[in-house]
Amino acid sequence: MKLIIVGGVAGGASAAARARRLSEEAEILLIERGPDVSFANCGLPYYIGGEIVEREKLLVTTPERLRTRFKLDVRTRSSVEAIDRTAKKIRVRDLASRREYEENYDKLILAPGAAPLRPPIPGIDLPGIFTLRNLQDVDRIKERVDQGVKQAVVVGAGFIGLELVENFVKRGIATTVVELQDQVLPPFDKEMTTPIVETLLAKGVKVLLGQSADGFEEAPDGVIVRLKSGQRLPAHLVILGVGVRPENKLAVEAGLEVGPRGGIRVNEHLQTSDPNIYAVGDAIEVKDIVSGDPTQVPLAGPANRQGRIAADNIFGRAVRYRGTQGTAIVGVFDRTAAMTGASEKALRRANRPFRKVYIHPTHHAGYYPGAEAMTLKLLFDPTTGRVLGAQAVGGAGVDKRIDVLAVAIQAGMTVFDLEEMELAYSPQYGSAKDPVNMAGFVAGGLMRGDHPQTDWEAVSVMADKPFLLDVRTPLEYANGHIEGAINIPVDELRNQLADMPKDRPVVTYCQVGQRGYLATRILMQTGFKVSNLGGGYKTYQMFGGEVVNETPAGSPQPSSQGCRVEDRPLTIPAKEPVR
Amino acid sequence: MKLIIVGGVAGGASAAARARRLSEEAEILLIERGPDVSFANCGLPYYIGGEIVEREKLLVTTPERLRTRFKLDVRTRSSVEAIDRTAKKIRVRDLASRREYEENYDKLILAPGAAPLRPPIPGIDLPGIFTLRNLQDVDRIKERVDQGVKQAVVVGAGFIGLELVENFVKRGIATTVVELQDQVLPPFDKEMTTPIVETLLAKGVKVLLGQSADGFEEAPDGVIVRLKSGQRLPAHLVILGVGVRPENKLAVEAGLEVGPRGGIRVNEHLQTSDPNIYAVGDAIEVKDIVSGDPTQVPLAGPANRQGRIAADNIFGRAVRYRGTQGTAIVGVFDRTAAMTGASEKALRRANRPFRKVYIHPTHHAGYYPGAEAMTLKLLFDPTTGRVLGAQAVGGAGVDKRIDVLAVAIQAGMTVFDLEEMELAYSPQYGSAKDPVNMAGFVAGGLMRGDHPQTDWEAVSVMADKPFLLDVRTPLEYANGHIEGAINIPVDELRNQLADMPKDRPVVTYCQVGQRGYLATRILMQTGFKVSNLGGGYKTYQMFGGEVVNETPAGSPQPSSQGCRVEDRPLTIPAKEPVR
Repeated sequence: MKLIIVGGVAGGASAAARARRLSEEAEILLIERGPDVSFANCGLPYYIGGEIVEREKLLVTTPERLRTRFKLDVRTRSSVEAIDRTAKKIRVRDLASRREYEENYDKLILAPGAAPLRPPIPGIDLPGIFTLRNLQDVDRIKERVDQGVKQAVVVGAGFIGLELVENFVKRGIATTVVELQDQVLPPFDKEMTTPIVETLLAKGVKVLLGQSADGFEEAPDGVIVRLKSGQRLPAHLVILGVGVRPENKLAVEAGLEVGPRGGIRVNEHLQTSDPNIYAVGDAIEVKDIVSGDPTQVPLAGPANRQGRIAADNIFGRAVRYRGTQGTAIVGVFDRTAAMTGASEKALRRANRPFRKVYIHPTHHAGYYPGAEAMTLKLLFDPTTGRVLGAQAVGGAGVDKRIDVLAVAIQAGMTVFDLEEMELAYSPQYGSAKDPVNMAGFVAGGLMRGDHPQTDWEAVSVMADKPFLLDVRTPLEYANGHIEGAINIPVDELRNQLADMPKDRPVVTYCQVGQRGYLATRILMQTGFKVSNLGGGYKTYQMFGGEVVNETPAGSPQPSSQGCRVEDRPLTIPAKEPVR
Repeated sequence: MKLIIVGGVAGGASAAARARRLSEEAEILLIERGPDVSFANCGLPYYIGGEIVEREKLLVTTPERLRTRFKLDVRTRSSVEAIDRTAKKIRVRDLASRREYEENYDKLILAPGAAPLRPPIPGIDLPGIFTLRNLQDVDRIKERVDQGVKQAVVVGAGFIGLELVENFVKRGIATTVVELQDQVLPPFDKEMTTPIVETLLAKGVKVLLGQSADGFEEAPDGVIVRLKSGQRLPAHLVILGVGVRPENKLAVEAGLEVGPRGGIRVNEHLQTSDPNIYAVGDAIEVKDIVSGDPTQVPLAGPANRQGRIAADNIFGRAVRYRGTQGTAIVGVFDRTAAMTGASEKALRRANRPFRKVYIHPTHHAGYYPGAEAMTLKLLFDPTTGRVLGAQAVGGAGVDKRIDVLAVAIQAGMTVFDLEEMELAYSPQYGSAKDPVNMAGFVAGGLMRGDHPQTDWEAVSVMADKPFLLDVRTPLEYANGHIEGAINIPVDELRNQLADMPKDRPVVTYCQVGQRGYLATRILMQTGFKVSNLGGGYKTYQMFGGEVVNETPAGSPQPSSQGCRVEDRPLTIPAKEPVR
């Protein structure tokens, strides 16, 4: 068996090591265009920021190590130029000597990865404009930063974009992030990104949403980024983080099938349309395990597992890749945002019915010092209760809850299963009713009809204008409430039922939903047509948290209360008489 | 409906609040012997230590809050003296006025909790000897500590015992812990507690294992704890943390069924042998969901959920309590130990077949600063691969992995499912191959026969004395190895196969198991009868980590390398010629 693997980073290196473990006899070539194999691409932004100090830390392994330990024929700085599928051979170009030669194969694994997009706009090739994919990129960017950069523009507010923003700020660089969409972190639902935007603003980052660059101009010590809006942003350093595209040229030229977005098509054994050629990693199209649809998810974890599985199949084990659920996480300063499974917008795009709940717990028992706040959003099937997706944003403990929910999705669990989860509790680590249990309780109650819920988006368009009931304390109400809401604290509600309208729908809310839930139960049982506002006032604020598309220097920044509330001055009445 | 709930802490208070949410009309009495309801019992040790500063933080809610918010008839300092099941009434004693009166009920929920054991040994009632259950206990202990305590003895090295030890040390108290069993944290398997013992010793705690107190004597400013061994420990403060027993007196006197260990028997709806009486919390016997056997697990999370479920059933919802899997966690200084499902010793006791793997990963990517070490032990069914239990000990991230594995157990997942888990990865949070994936890979490989594994307990008793092969570097080998092992670094192994014996079983090992795995694969494929030592040298060390039963003051303490290795001076040969 002669196996050739094209690409030596996550998926390729995993495939090679696995192949050797499965066969001492096989001839295994690992061909990599760059000088490095298996480097820590997810660590690159932190090397620029100085969190990771030694460059060697980024090298997970070396060609030499792979040669001695795994008896691999590793050829770096070698580019595979073409595949002759009929003859089962490839043409390799040695980039140093420019020599070309052929190698035949029994099986081939393509692990070429994905390349950062460089949109064809004027000036894109000016010096000072970078993308970030590998160690050579990071060396160039770090060199520039080390030389002294005062202003940077990051185009694209995705995961890598925001990681770079954080690291630039830590290096003292005034940073602007420009994003075409009207939110940061596009895979997330917009309201869940509100706390991330607040953090960026609090750290002095200029956040320009719904904007895009349409040109770059040379400037004395850098570049001018020209936006479609006409705005011109001077920068000593520009990063393009606007997405990646599968490196499919080799596959396409060899006549292998690719999907509409360019991902190399594979079956569940990761075999391409040519049974002798497998493909893994960021270059392939995979199945989204929630929707069942094809998708492209460039993530390190799945790439590693795919490499392993491709090798398994080649060496006679019929192992299946179950698909990808898109579990992802990003740290932005002291906040964490993470998600797994389907987002609300993906479900809407697919016209798939769903319900959702929001909770705002702390990451461990509130009575123990250091509890950090988070918001957790759970999406589930309205008929079966099956968990479809989850997103969380906050401080510590966000990663844990998303991991727990990732497993729930993998297992096909329902919100009722979440109610029963027995998670580790001691006050430093969690709560007797963990956030995941709480999300299950709220969603389970909704499924059972215990507490009808109305989402904010629905309240704002209700034909039958509801009686908005704020059941928080007068102080909380005075500090900000939804326009038109009447305040009756939950503890006084039972005594004031006579004053409430029975001919109009009542929508009740509190800060996070819990007192609103009790109020809903009281009102439901006493003849009112009532529902609870999903996730309470805090969720309402996250929806309201629209970012000013431009924050002129020196203008006041939105507070952590969310912008919409601040934008339109609130009527803060004294406690109103209830009719 | 008139519902009476006996006991107002975790399970009782949850039941009461849930009952009110389900019915505005029901008459609900909550009767509690102490002055407080729903306090944070898991926080008590940290109030003594000063981590939790304000006493009010320990009050999750107050009787007054329960009255106004949930319209409950809360009666504190009231003891239920008897149940007349035929007449469906109880006799209540008001502890302040000493007045007794009766209350009839339609349904009754017993949530009396469990009381700390006070073994009947001489001197047990001397002043200065405390147990810790409620706020009154904590007030007494804290008062004593605040007065100035120099020496404390904690009898019992369970969860609460060790939490108290930590908090005493933080208050500057020289603390000794005495434990009857030969390990701390008896629910865990012994080897997994080695790092906890090392931490205790490093913090100056005196750890006396396999010892018990057989008497207490009065001393001028405290107590002398007399051990069975004859040793006498002077102490200004003694805590008894030797376990709890269900408060079943009321139930037993009313003729309700109890289990052999005293837990009140309930069905899956949490109904006792009297269908009008339910029971929840630490006082009941529950089903162990892994073994299916009855057990008693005094934990806050399950108590809360049981309270909710009992109320559900009373108000017409046939909700089932699925049982308890014993997920538990404890912090001991900077270490965390957590477990879920069955332990190895529980499986052995039940004669249930199992296999196990150990891994020693870091909690996030090693290339990102701050990665903390952990050991993860996974127990699984040798036929189906189903996960039966897991234990972890280390620093950060232990809680996350045990929660993930708790869900895997709940879902009936196998080790093959662990291989596929898609968990959140970014270098600050995890690894592309998360510890849970890694445990799945090792266990899955074992199930598939890819790498036979021999556990250390088996190596030491192998009839056919194995050829012990240490595949680490010469430096690692020189720093400590298993007696009789021969060193061939894995990278040189392929060149030295001719020198290895084919007529004897080979057991290979490295530091944590990974290089040993590759060595096993190489040797398996080249005709050797080989197995990998489970968890490598590090696991061997944890097994060797027997604690000196007594550490005389000033004597050298075992290093973090584990004691057995240190106890018998190692022969550290230069690299031996391989025959």
